Amino acid sequence: MSFDKLQALIDKLKNPSSVGLDPALELIPPHILASSGSAAEAYLEFNRGVIDALCDIVPAVKPQSAFYERLGTAGMRVLRDTAEYAKTRGMYVIFDGKRGDIGSTATAYADAYLGAASEYSFDAMTVNSYLGSDGLSPFLRAAEENDKAVFALVKTSNPSSGEIQDLESGREKIYELVGAVLEKLAGNALGEYGYSRLGGVVGATYPAELRALREKLPHTFFLVPGYGAQGGAARDASGAFDKSGRGAIVSSSRSIIGAWKRSGGEGRDFAETARAEALRMRDDLRKELKL
Amino acid sequence: MSFDKLQALIDKLKNPSSVGLDPALELIPPHILASSGSAAEAYLEFNRGVIDALCDIVPAVKPQSAFYERLGTAGMRVLRDTAEYAKTRGMYVIFDGKRGDIGSTATAYADAYLGAASEYSFDAMTVNSYLGSDGLSPFLRAAEENDKAVFALVKTSNPSSGEIQDLESGREKIYELVGAVLEKLAGNALGEYGYSRLGGVVGATYPAELRALREKLPHTFFLVPGYGAQGGAARDASGAFDKSGRGAIVSSSRSIIGAWKRSGGEGRDFAETARAEALRMRDDLRKELKL
Repeated sequence: MSFDKLQALIDKLKNPSSVGLDPALELIPPHILASSGSAAEAYLEFNRGVIDALCDIVPAVKPQSAFYERLGTAGMRVLRDTAEYAKTRGMYVIFDGKRGDIGSTATAYADAYLGAASEYSFDAMTVNSYLGSDGLSPFLRAAEENDKAVFALVKTSNPSSGEIQDLESGREKIYELVGAVLEKLAGNALGEYGYSRLGGVVGATYPAELRALREKLPHTFFLVPGYGAQGGAARDASGAFDKSGRGAIVSSSRSIIGAWKRSGGEGRDFAETARAEALRMRDDLRKELKL
Repeated sequence: MSFDKLQALIDKLKNPSSVGLDPALELIPPHILASSGSAAEAYLEFNRGVIDALCDIVPAVKPQSAFYERLGTAGMRVLRDTAEYAKTRGMYVIFDGKRGDIGSTATAYADAYLGAASEYSFDAMTVNSYLGSDGLSPFLRAAEENDKAVFALVKTSNPSSGEIQDLESGREKIYELVGAVLEKLAGNALGEYGYSRLGGVVGATYPAELRALREKLPHTFFLVPGYGAQGGAARDASGAFDKSGRGAIVSSSRSIIGAWKRSGGEGRDFAETARAEALRMRDDLRKELKL
């Protein structure tokens, strides 16, 4: 149950990382753009190439919904087909859509992406915590019913995340109080490794906060964005892990899927360069975490 | 500019209300379900009927994205076609998707729904404020560039909204501090009625908070959900308006689009009952606001 499936995959590959599939036109190699009839078609071919290159070494992919939504309805079909393809290649698929709304609407979002009748092959999704527990519980319930998981925003990786999240209330900061809401809501339903189905998003760009949150939220599995292009290093992300090196997955996007742009080529090597960069990230995390 | 277009429509119809197009199978009359090949088809026919019944008396519709996303990729096409249809009938269309992410991703969301190349005919969209100003500014920028508008969550209408939003930091509550971020971010670019392009969402279910926020945020146009099925009355919503009766729009969904279920019929009168209920809401607001 809960994040057990993800942790088992991570353990098997000795790689607690996830690759963000956040396609943008400037990240698609020219030869793919030239042979595709549309941006949507190009995104899908590119994603499939990246997935093929990574599926035996990286446990999870995290498509960022915004980049698909930007292509309109055709983009949603690419999102669906990308998730399905990653699934057939054995990967854990995290829908990064950061949805959140009042209870009845949150239930519709949960049905959309985690429900039994969902058109999408997602294992987990990200949600926004601002609405409080009645906006979160429908996602948790859907995860319980369908053996899926949820990551709720705690401390985000962006520069201005502190404007709201770092405000102090009493002796704690808002993001700490959000974390407490998550632990309380998830209750005692814990998986094999001691984690609930309600994880948290905490940026690698705030390593001290990350380390403190690991202590405070012992049952909250962390999704850690901000490694790579956003500036976070393996050392920064390491605080997200528990003493056995479990309980978190670090995500990187542009530095991996856009690695070909730094290789000096035309992008015909996009799969190889993505794999090389993913291996570098894996080894970086292995070394830091002594895996 | 800014919310001028919406306010002008509101003034013309003397009706500061918006109808939520939040279709669910149980709200679709049986005869529409029977004659439709799919839920998506039924939603679209239903929405068109509601729009036809309301477009000369209600200035705006607010499709709630979750209910379309629940139908997968077909649902996104219904969302697009619904927005386009409402547009051709002269209505202002608010995309209620509550998106929110770090800057580069927020830019993609803003492009998706407010951008020049967007597939959707939206005039405004709702966004989540938890990420702070660098997660909000891409939406504001897109609104400025494309003559659109944004509503960011301030104080939501749900029962547990206080868990995070009502926490006190210093002498103010989080939702008040969020409101201050919005006013600061929007700056001095104000429209004809004194409002910026960056509005706020404040629930009618918290009337005292709504009234206080109107005072504190003089340049923030309010979208006020929670009227009707969620329990808010015209009096509760009235605090959202400025002294000239402007600066806000009150939204109701189920009590209008599901009015046929209370008429005792089979739903062949769904358009007439929605219109009657929308007129009742309009007159309720007119009376309260002395319009």
